Amino acid sequence: MAFSERVSRLKSSLIREILAAAQRPEVMSFAGGLPAEAMLPKVEWADMPLAMGQYGMSEGEPALREALAAEARALGVPCEASQVLVVSGSQQTLDLAAKLYIDKGTEIMLEAPTYLAALQIFQLFGADCLTVPLEADGPNLNELRARLEKHHPAFIYLIPTFQNPSAVRYSEAKRDAVAALLDEFGVTLIEDEPYRELTFDGGSATPIVSRLKKASWIYTGTVSKTLLPGLRVGYLIASPDLFPHLLRLKQSADLHTNRVGQWQALQWIGSEKFRDHLSELRDFYRVRRDAFQLALETHFCDLAEWNVPQGGLFFWLTLKQPLDTRTLLNEALAQDVAFMPGEPFFSEPDNNPGHLRLNFSHIDPARLDEGLKRLAGVVRQAQAAQAA
Amino acid sequence: MAFSERVSRLKSSLIREILAAAQRPEVMSFAGGLPAEAMLPKVEWADMPLAMGQYGMSEGEPALREALAAEARALGVPCEASQVLVVSGSQQTLDLAAKLYIDKGTEIMLEAPTYLAALQIFQLFGADCLTVPLEADGPNLNELRARLEKHHPAFIYLIPTFQNPSAVRYSEAKRDAVAALLDEFGVTLIEDEPYRELTFDGGSATPIVSRLKKASWIYTGTVSKTLLPGLRVGYLIASPDLFPHLLRLKQSADLHTNRVGQWQALQWIGSEKFRDHLSELRDFYRVRRDAFQLALETHFCDLAEWNVPQGGLFFWLTLKQPLDTRTLLNEALAQDVAFMPGEPFFSEPDNNPGHLRLNFSHIDPARLDEGLKRLAGVVRQAQAAQAA
Repeated sequence: MAFSERVSRLKSSLIREILAAAQRPEVMSFAGGLPAEAMLPKVEWADMPLAMGQYGMSEGEPALREALAAEARALGVPCEASQVLVVSGSQQTLDLAAKLYIDKGTEIMLEAPTYLAALQIFQLFGADCLTVPLEADGPNLNELRARLEKHHPAFIYLIPTFQNPSAVRYSEAKRDAVAALLDEFGVTLIEDEPYRELTFDGGSATPIVSRLKKASWIYTGTVSKTLLPGLRVGYLIASPDLFPHLLRLKQSADLHTNRVGQWQALQWIGSEKFRDHLSELRDFYRVRRDAFQLALETHFCDLAEWNVPQGGLFFWLTLKQPLDTRTLLNEALAQDVAFMPGEPFFSEPDNNPGHLRLNFSHIDPARLDEGLKRLAGVVRQAQAAQAA
Repeated sequence: MAFSERVSRLKSSLIREILAAAQRPEVMSFAGGLPAEAMLPKVEWADMPLAMGQYGMSEGEPALREALAAEARALGVPCEASQVLVVSGSQQTLDLAAKLYIDKGTEIMLEAPTYLAALQIFQLFGADCLTVPLEADGPNLNELRARLEKHHPAFIYLIPTFQNPSAVRYSEAKRDAVAALLDEFGVTLIEDEPYRELTFDGGSATPIVSRLKKASWIYTGTVSKTLLPGLRVGYLIASPDLFPHLLRLKQSADLHTNRVGQWQALQWIGSEKFRDHLSELRDFYRVRRDAFQLALETHFCDLAEWNVPQGGLFFWLTLKQPLDTRTLLNEALAQDVAFMPGEPFFSEPDNNPGHLRLNFSHIDPARLDEGLKRLAGVVRQAQAAQAA
């Protein structure tokens, strides 16, 4: 069987396997990044024109592109509708970016830790991953400058707002500093913002792409975390030098994004109804975050350190006594608990043991305490075994 | 700007440009492959469960996979639901296959002519394209054997039923012979069947994959030509050795196919309602085909040769005096007529002048005659200029 060379880098997805194992109804899962089912808004389809069933434009629905551009401009991103490409979920942006930039051995730069599925597809295409360590307010700037002085990555991929997995939100100062560095070194920025709207303290900061003066950029977002992931509607906005290439790559990937989902998204983007929904969503998740924090304090305060996330869907725990958290999975699942080990969020998993990513949006609150108690027990047991 | 090496092979899509030019309402377009708007069935959404809004499985909806497997088995394809992957339109199957097989310089085999967008994505990934000429009943078998004796392509890509662009339907004998050759030489088959259901003479022949005894295979289909292209719901069925790789590639491409479209497709696949709709669709397109044939006889009988298509959406004309039909485009558009030049359907366009692909499903019947008359005029004028 002669597969392509890249298939040798095609990894099994740990998160898929965990989610499959967590299908049993008795499992208490902290593993995924799923919105709470209770907060999926009721949507209407009765008014959708039949014409939405026909083939559409690769760029996306014109009215939706206009609406997305208007939203982006309100955030400070300088753009026109002609720079907006509707994609099949923002994961597709990563696929298109990989195709646009990555040959075997192409150097790219990412945060450490970073989004698992980004790492997977960039590595599938053969990227050499340079990383910059994240601090509580964004990347370590000295390290970032040092890397940029030595290397010229094809792009840097950043998730500055409620990062997955770390929940980090970059400060204003670091956003400015990162933008200035990318302009100075002429490095393209891919800025991924699925969690921007899920803010619990009302804080907001303009995207880094809006602070760039020279560097090329791709900004990507989605309705998956705020409306319905099942629509598979995301978008990218690109600087004009990149857009035509991304459009052709989109066309060759799947012709265009499904129009029924685009139509539904258009009913919400920019509407009063959507603003109300987002406000309810923030309140709902804030309550879950607070309950999670309480339960964590009860069961993990001696075991781990963490920052309270101000947005997004995850707590990121750092064990005081590091161990490879992947080794905890089987025992946790045996006790009907699923979680996401931290190692796969690093390009060098084996060098970064001792983190856990815990989703707080999807767990049944009635079972939260029991789930974290069992998980803490699994950690304690493993640490005792390690010490013995 | 340091793009990937593959971007140097990223072509502008001629068909996109033509379709964009043909947006003016006064244009009579034979260019696209769009279903007739009048035949898009009215669909209901009221019963869709809210849970379809949540993230879904990368494989696709379990019930839809079962239904698609049952349909495929009824066609003679030996498969289980576990071999079915729901994709974002069957174009995505080509993207996944390209990722699975093609490095720069990988030899693959295709029909000449073949589906334009397949050629584009395979070439984007760097494929070296071997071709086998099509005859009225399928590929030239001597040429196919000769190629296979000299080369070992990673796969062969075939569209045996109402091929786009040529409308060719392989005979039973050629289907058997092709299957035997692929088994003999151990070549993987990718069989693309978007037009299977659009048969006008009631004829049917089992897919080639159902005749294979040893070779690996991917069979791909879609609801785009029979239900609604705007759903972006297609599927692939793969031999078990290939499936796990394709599944991981699907996940990295866009996580999963939109669930609302999958739910809608499931309301139709295998139902009485769908069978009735397909029957109406065949009757409708047969009438359009017949009207087109009449108009062609009037305007093109001295200019070109063609076979009357027994299915699908296209006439494939071969000019008696070949010329590069791409040179006709501007003049045709100036006369408000759009068509698809034949050259881009060949891996070596410049060596294959003198074909036109004409879509008969989408043109307003009232303007059909005028459109073909003008197009014939453009051809005549160019041939006179060439002779002068």
